Amino acid sequence: MMNPNRPLILISNDDGYRAKGINELIDTLRDVADLVVMAPDGPRSGAACAMTSEQPVRYYKVKEEEGLVVYRCTGTPVDCVKLALHTMQRRPDIVLGGINHGDNSSVNVHYSGTMGVVLEGCMKGIPSIGFSLCDHAPDANFKPMLPYVKNIVLSVLKHRLPQGVCLNVNAPVADAYKGVRICRQTQGVWENEWKCCPHPRGGEYYWLTGNYRITEGNSPDNDHWALDNGYIAITPVQIDMTAYQVMEELKNWDL
Amino acid sequence: MMNPNRPLILISNDDGYRAKGINELIDTLRDVADLVVMAPDGPRSGAACAMTSEQPVRYYKVKEEEGLVVYRCTGTPVDCVKLALHTMQRRPDIVLGGINHGDNSSVNVHYSGTMGVVLEGCMKGIPSIGFSLCDHAPDANFKPMLPYVKNIVLSVLKHRLPQGVCLNVNAPVADAYKGVRICRQTQGVWENEWKCCPHPRGGEYYWLTGNYRITEGNSPDNDHWALDNGYIAITPVQIDMTAYQVMEELKNWDL
Repeated sequence: MMNPNRPLILISNDDGYRAKGINELIDTLRDVADLVVMAPDGPRSGAACAMTSEQPVRYYKVKEEEGLVVYRCTGTPVDCVKLALHTMQRRPDIVLGGINHGDNSSVNVHYSGTMGVVLEGCMKGIPSIGFSLCDHAPDANFKPMLPYVKNIVLSVLKHRLPQGVCLNVNAPVADAYKGVRICRQTQGVWENEWKCCPHPRGGEYYWLTGNYRITEGNSPDNDHWALDNGYIAITPVQIDMTAYQVMEELKNWDL
Repeated sequence: MMNPNRPLILISNDDGYRAKGINELIDTLRDVADLVVMAPDGPRSGAACAMTSEQPVRYYKVKEEEGLVVYRCTGTPVDCVKLALHTMQRRPDIVLGGINHGDNSSVNVHYSGTMGVVLEGCMKGIPSIGFSLCDHAPDANFKPMLPYVKNIVLSVLKHRLPQGVCLNVNAPVADAYKGVRICRQTQGVWENEWKCCPHPRGGEYYWLTGNYRITEGNSPDNDHWALDNGYIAITPVQIDMTAYQVMEELKNWDL
């Protein structure tokens, strides 16, 4: 059912295979490439690069059409990518995460299951892109960003990406965009992260919530500025997390 | 029970509060500082920076002694840090992850729950260090690395760390070490990652496994070289994942 002469794209996400965002991504790209979708069988928001080591993982075919096959997987977003790459007949040209329901800019790159998909694809040497819309609603309106999504995918199919570098693409809620901005990751911090509730049988339980606060000045080269000013933010992200600038200083410590 | 004049250290891990590694870390540091331990109630290996968004989280006191309190938590390693910081009376001077049973060097920084602890502490602006021994065994011998662990903690208490930078410390299995090396993250890839097994009631299930392969030349500045040559590897890691070196090139694409 797959055409060896067309580009092949692997898609996953962290909202699960039924989410609106991943299905809009699929619909947008069917005329561009053949698609293999391996996505979690339910929500995995905040899964980061988690992988399943204490349990086995299974996957099941949901549907198969000309140029499209969709699997649901019991594992994490990263498991989905690892398992798809293990079982696919052909190596994909691109790995995509999303379209996520919610903002993955700034430090959220570390928590995001969508970016887990993307980092995993990138670590496997495949050009990888994460797409997110800053709207958590299940029926969020992805339509205005879809032409940009298609254009970014076509550009990466053409140019590819440097080894060890992937893209984190975030779109604000808007009816139309001013364009795209190439950005760096904004410095920020999550605060007031827990809502404490009394348990009916004693003790307390905690729900994760929180307020995000930017901890740097207003700077037009960061991804929050782009989102706040009506642009789609494209932040290149790298696998190498080494803080090179402190290596010399550390060598002077008595370690 | 805590002394406001002593340093305060928050400790978590991804192997759970009962693991040998975290208890050796506690024993090593009791004469250095007061300790708050908030660790998962069971194994969370490979949890990365995952956080629990679909379920509530609870925590329970396991023990309290002079200068030490230990809690077990139903959440992920990152949840443990977030919850401890939310509930502690005083901000800790350092956040520690480990000592992990297993190697967290190279690309494993992305999957590691131990480094999830450390990245979370760092994102909260607290000097943070992850300690790992390259031995998965439950009864691994941490003893040779403990004097280095204590010295590194004392050095960070003295010098602190630059904002947005934390340390990933890995020790090879050895009776004695040649010393420490300040390193960068080695480039490598995980391959052959799944063991497929037939399910007794039909279909197949998959266990995560794999072989790690280094994809760069033999270079004495990377963390794998240090581990292979009898050194403890100290890799500074940063929160900012921006690939600055490709930003200009991307601006020339038709995006």
